[in-house]
Amino acid sequence: MAPQPTRDDKFTFGLWTVGWQARDPFGDATRPPLDPVETVHRLAELGAYGVTFHDDDLIPFGTDAPERDRLIARFRAALDETGLVVPMATTNLFTHPVFKDGGFTSNDRSVRRFALRKIIRNLDLAAELGASTYVFWGGREGAEVDQAKDIRAALDRYREGIDLLAGYVKEQGYGIRFAIEPKPNEPRGDILLPTVGHALAFIAELEHGDMVGLNPEVGHEQMAGLNFTAGIAQALWAGKLFHIDLNGQRGIKYDQDLVFGHGDLLNAFSLVDLLENGSNGSGAYEGPRHFDYKPLRTEDIDGVWASAAANMRTYLLLKERAAAFRADPEVAEALAASGVADLSTPTIKPGETIADLVADRSAFEDFDADKTAERGYGFVRLGQLALEHVMGAR
Amino acid sequence: MAPQPTRDDKFTFGLWTVGWQARDPFGDATRPPLDPVETVHRLAELGAYGVTFHDDDLIPFGTDAPERDRLIARFRAALDETGLVVPMATTNLFTHPVFKDGGFTSNDRSVRRFALRKIIRNLDLAAELGASTYVFWGGREGAEVDQAKDIRAALDRYREGIDLLAGYVKEQGYGIRFAIEPKPNEPRGDILLPTVGHALAFIAELEHGDMVGLNPEVGHEQMAGLNFTAGIAQALWAGKLFHIDLNGQRGIKYDQDLVFGHGDLLNAFSLVDLLENGSNGSGAYEGPRHFDYKPLRTEDIDGVWASAAANMRTYLLLKERAAAFRADPEVAEALAASGVADLSTPTIKPGETIADLVADRSAFEDFDADKTAERGYGFVRLGQLALEHVMGAR
Amino acid sequence: MAPQPTRDDKFTFGLWTVGWQARDPFGDATRPPLDPVETVHRLAELGAYGVTFHDDDLIPFGTDAPERDRLIARFRAALDETGLVVPMATTNLFTHPVFKDGGFTSNDRSVRRFALRKIIRNLDLAAELGASTYVFWGGREGAEVDQAKDIRAALDRYREGIDLLAGYVKEQGYGIRFAIEPKPNEPRGDILLPTVGHALAFIAELEHGDMVGLNPEVGHEQMAGLNFTAGIAQALWAGKLFHIDLNGQRGIKYDQDLVFGHGDLLNAFSLVDLLENGSNGSGAYEGPRHFDYKPLRTEDIDGVWASAAANMRTYLLLKERAAAFRADPEVAEALAASGVADLSTPTIKPGETIADLVADRSAFEDFDADKTAERGYGFVRLGQLALEHVMGAR
Amino acid sequence: MAPQPTRDDKFTFGLWTVGWQARDPFGDATRPPLDPVETVHRLAELGAYGVTFHDDDLIPFGTDAPERDRLIARFRAALDETGLVVPMATTNLFTHPVFKDGGFTSNDRSVRRFALRKIIRNLDLAAELGASTYVFWGGREGAEVDQAKDIRAALDRYREGIDLLAGYVKEQGYGIRFAIEPKPNEPRGDILLPTVGHALAFIAELEHGDMVGLNPEVGHEQMAGLNFTAGIAQALWAGKLFHIDLNGQRGIKYDQDLVFGHGDLLNAFSLVDLLENGSNGSGAYEGPRHFDYKPLRTEDIDGVWASAAANMRTYLLLKERAAAFRADPEVAEALAASGVADLSTPTIKPGETIADLVADRSAFEDFDADKTAERGYGFVRLGQLALEHVMGAR
Repeated sequence: MAPQPTRDDKFTFGLWTVGWQARDPFGDATRPPLDPVETVHRLAELGAYGVTFHDDDLIPFGTDAPERDRLIARFRAALDETGLVVPMATTNLFTHPVFKDGGFTSNDRSVRRFALRKIIRNLDLAAELGASTYVFWGGREGAEVDQAKDIRAALDRYREGIDLLAGYVKEQGYGIRFAIEPKPNEPRGDILLPTVGHALAFIAELEHGDMVGLNPEVGHEQMAGLNFTAGIAQALWAGKLFHIDLNGQRGIKYDQDLVFGHGDLLNAFSLVDLLENGSNGSGAYEGPRHFDYKPLRTEDIDGVWASAAANMRTYLLLKERAAAFRADPEVAEALAASGVADLSTPTIKPGETIADLVADRSAFEDFDADKTAERGYGFVRLGQLALEHVMGAR
Repeated sequence: MAPQPTRDDKFTFGLWTVGWQARDPFGDATRPPLDPVETVHRLAELGAYGVTFHDDDLIPFGTDAPERDRLIARFRAALDETGLVVPMATTNLFTHPVFKDGGFTSNDRSVRRFALRKIIRNLDLAAELGASTYVFWGGREGAEVDQAKDIRAALDRYREGIDLLAGYVKEQGYGIRFAIEPKPNEPRGDILLPTVGHALAFIAELEHGDMVGLNPEVGHEQMAGLNFTAGIAQALWAGKLFHIDLNGQRGIKYDQDLVFGHGDLLNAFSLVDLLENGSNGSGAYEGPRHFDYKPLRTEDIDGVWASAAANMRTYLLLKERAAAFRADPEVAEALAASGVADLSTPTIKPGETIADLVADRSAFEDFDADKTAERGYGFVRLGQLALEHVMGAR
Repeated sequence: MAPQPTRDDKFTFGLWTVGWQARDPFGDATRPPLDPVETVHRLAELGAYGVTFHDDDLIPFGTDAPERDRLIARFRAALDETGLVVPMATTNLFTHPVFKDGGFTSNDRSVRRFALRKIIRNLDLAAELGASTYVFWGGREGAEVDQAKDIRAALDRYREGIDLLAGYVKEQGYGIRFAIEPKPNEPRGDILLPTVGHALAFIAELEHGDMVGLNPEVGHEQMAGLNFTAGIAQALWAGKLFHIDLNGQRGIKYDQDLVFGHGDLLNAFSLVDLLENGSNGSGAYEGPRHFDYKPLRTEDIDGVWASAAANMRTYLLLKERAAAFRADPEVAEALAASGVADLSTPTIKPGETIADLVADRSAFEDFDADKTAERGYGFVRLGQLALEHVMGAR
Repeated sequence: MAPQPTRDDKFTFGLWTVGWQARDPFGDATRPPLDPVETVHRLAELGAYGVTFHDDDLIPFGTDAPERDRLIARFRAALDETGLVVPMATTNLFTHPVFKDGGFTSNDRSVRRFALRKIIRNLDLAAELGASTYVFWGGREGAEVDQAKDIRAALDRYREGIDLLAGYVKEQGYGIRFAIEPKPNEPRGDILLPTVGHALAFIAELEHGDMVGLNPEVGHEQMAGLNFTAGIAQALWAGKLFHIDLNGQRGIKYDQDLVFGHGDLLNAFSLVDLLENGSNGSGAYEGPRHFDYKPLRTEDIDGVWASAAANMRTYLLLKERAAAFRADPEVAEALAASGVADLSTPTIKPGETIADLVADRSAFEDFDADKTAERGYGFVRLGQLALEHVMGAR
């Protein structure tokens, strides 16, 4: 039996996940709206730690100020009652038609200014609710037609916007960091900052890059055929894994937002292993385990809650399996035979200069490439050990 | 008729491109080896500007020193005779079995040391031959099994190696810059630095990042479903387009290395437009137009040279079309209607503070989102104008 | 200049194409509804030949009978006024939530019965309006979870439904043929009959397969990375290309429904060449050239009509280019050198038995494989000639 | 612990799988050749049931008759000693350069005739060795350039060849059936009969289609993003699953040929469940479980045998999990709630006519679509139950 989720597991859900009404490009909604207050209560019962939101999830676009206050107040009350926290918030810059060409990078400057103001407003609320991460998913920042978007100008505007907002957060003393969420396409034909790599590279060009990191999503990287665990490792290496979106995806196709694990299960295993156990003792990810998924359109409200529970249960099962994998002496032996830890040894000896290296005949002149090439790395065995641990077969 | 290529077009080819013997995962070679000297002469006749090489293309792995000198001397003589230059060189860290788990990031440290020495040796030759760019394609730096490679340690070793070599180049006073070539997969299941973005992000973590940029390849980005022109634009934005590999690819599948344009022709057009015309007058790419393609396995040697010519001819045709596109008044009008240049206007006014923005009621309180949303961006028209220019129909 | 479309070009559009309000998985509608009557008039002005519809495009789901009659009457009047025809109609079995698990293959039998009735009702209308093709796109016939759908039972139900309806059409004497439209995924994770091949194979198992063929869509095959022209050729080979959906797609990703040609332009060229010129004189496709695309969400209503015109214009340009390609003596020479027509010669001589073949020493014992292997097929040259014709450069 | 494989499990391996020397498009062989005799002995020790081969695996291309006899004799002796059987054989029409444009469909007729003779020769051997299945993988039957291949003529030649050979097999009284193996691409840009569907559709056009079925391969369908289990179900539905190639693939990319299960583990589970348990009691697949994989290039010979064992072990583990899944009362209850078995109930009542259906007001006029739409199908729960069984967590 899998353990039950507790607050310590730091599982969080977006209001828009369980609250998705299942409207898709070819179909109408199959479920009624969910009251955010009910969501808070149900998630708390299921063992979640927190809840996250886009501004428009909580306060419909165009709501007037008094109604906005009322909606916030009752949401807050639900949080207080349940003890759920709000570790992250974000802005909806994609649903309203005004954002059809983007928010930060719309070709229309008035839209860009409106987008900044919409973000600022919700940043204030996020700070008020105690969020420590603010996510930017630029789903509409992109193009279908190569001639329609000057990509360099778009990146200038993106940087201008993020830096401005980062300056604001610092100025206000909000304890908030930014996390950019990459996605390669959908709803735009090609989206700016399409992968973990592109977003990291963008952050390196920011004035306030110190407070900007990533919120990678499983399915988004897998939509580009990329290995999610490898991408997360590079984000960790750069010190930029500020938040994470867990879900499932079955290959390169439309964004499926399946339950975590209901896609590439082996990669989900290596991901949980990395998040929980680090690599070579380099420590685990400390932030929330945030599920950004959609209950299938075929499900009714009971199915919605079952799907929410399934995300957490799968994570905990994988965590157990990862712990067993790391504790298995045969795994340790196989990792050693494969030289996995040896890669942490610098290639150059302490104090060795390049001249020393060039003088080292054992490295080149006397190196027997053919002989060394005979080494078997035993990677299939490692993969099989992982698979058997995933399957609970060891 | 397309213009004939001249030296000024800066077209270059790798020895391994026309020299590919057409051995593939399921078949034996269909063509005899090509003597590099012959390649130099034939490329010169076709109007190329230069030739590039992996160490092993010129000097087979394991060649002894005198024979190595002889091979270099006759290659040099051919260059002198023809006037062809060598603007780029690179290292083969993938063919010999010793590199089966990588060069910079092999789990076997002796392989890593050997790889560094192999690179240093060829760097010296590259400098001697006047190369200004040295490319690093890490095709074997990766894994098929998630547990087989500690990605963070691998990135550490990659950085260690690149920084060491960059230091060496600086020390030696070679006028060489490094260019990393990303690829998502093949021959490894997942390759480190899989996209333009990941490689840019890696460079940002280097000690000697100032002399390290990119050598993106059309097909490699398209193997991840990414828009190549958009990736090149981000590389230019970061000041890191040091070199470029032109070829063709028909979607997400094995690495096809088709003739340039023989894949996504519309994207090839926007690429040439970007390289030649910049965007918004921001200037063109100045480096070689390097073709890294493979003549189809069905071709004989005549077909090889026809395919080499086809690459250059297609580029020149696209360049003509791009010039016509930029000169077309209807295009100018359509770009203006689409607001493409408006994106270069900062979102924030000169001197405007965030407080000013928050105080600007026109940006939010009085902004009519529904009204603004009615704007049509005319992107389909732009795309159609581009298509008609590509087709020579305007 | 491209010629103007005329009725003889047989260009048709679905009501749902220009009428798409641009609601997508992440955004609200950006355009108001279009009155079908207006659509008919505008398409007629643009030079279209006909219009097609889903029942619910013309008559919203749940409309009562008198209103239904009124809507049909005014649509008919518009057709009469403009001379536009209705060569095809189809059923919407995907928008209403009741179809969330499919129509023909819903796990709920009452839904399956309702679906059949909904189809029958619209079949009667299609016959009344003179349609000769009735399309079945089973976008909801599928699953996200392997255990959720018994595929063999689903195929049984699909066959049961199609055969029942085909029997009805024959019984009624409607001059209608059925055309199945394959798609690999979206909106379901995996859709039944995912490709041209799977649908052809299904048809071979029908009782009334004689009146059932295909309606392949460019983007749907390309979403599986398949060559659309090759798929159409196989459909023609099987005598089953009953209708065709033309649009554009940029690789393996969500269903883009771009303007025809605004994706893989080279493949669009070979498609038009096949449809117009057949192969080896085997004759052209005679049915409507039906555009099943979506104007980008960024466009206003002017952009909608511009995009409709762009589809036809691109088709006509490609048709001109294909004619020039086939008329070019150098192309003829290159095709001959490549042996393209030789493939129409049977491998076995007239009257030759297998014993004769086995006795033919020239076929094996005396066959010089190495020598024969030296032949260059000149395929790159052919591809380049095609590219240059597409570009209007010859 | 997983059970040990026995002959009754019918596990078979191709000589070319464990014998792959690990030459890839970018690298030389990393392993020495394996003697087929040794392979037979080692596979027998590991618990395999049989071995399969391409003609050239056993008898190198160009071997003379006496040497051929000797090679066959010692192979036969190894089979006799070990009890291993040869249930399948196939022809290599892809390695030698003469086949660079295909075998059945080369534009060169002399190559087509040679290909037929090469097949006939090996068919005789296959019959002699007791094979009951003969596989056709047409990896070179295709094109990279749309203009290079007349697809309809190619399908004519393909049909001509298969029918001729089928006639020969019938004439000779060999107890052999043919199995076509689809693949979308690699080594050709696009391959004829790219999916299970296309091959089934082709078979429907054959004269001797009764003795021709499929040999689908996991990775080949997944290279087109298709659900393998669903494809196998359609093949079973058509009565055409004559043989199966089991391996692993991690998404849409080059052909990886990983160990079975080392890719999409959840789909591997549903596949084994289908093969072993059928669906709704409709019976299991009876043929060999054939592994067509490649040991990673990083492995030495010990790794090769470990990988062979891993294939079988993973299959057996999945078979155990599938049995437990089917035996779990909660699964039975969930399947019932999802209506999975209900799909086997015909939509039309026994004896019901279409007139009856039209007269049934409950099916349409009185059908409450909104009410029926409220049903939750519980598919996420089913998926989670499957996942937990895969993980051995129930």
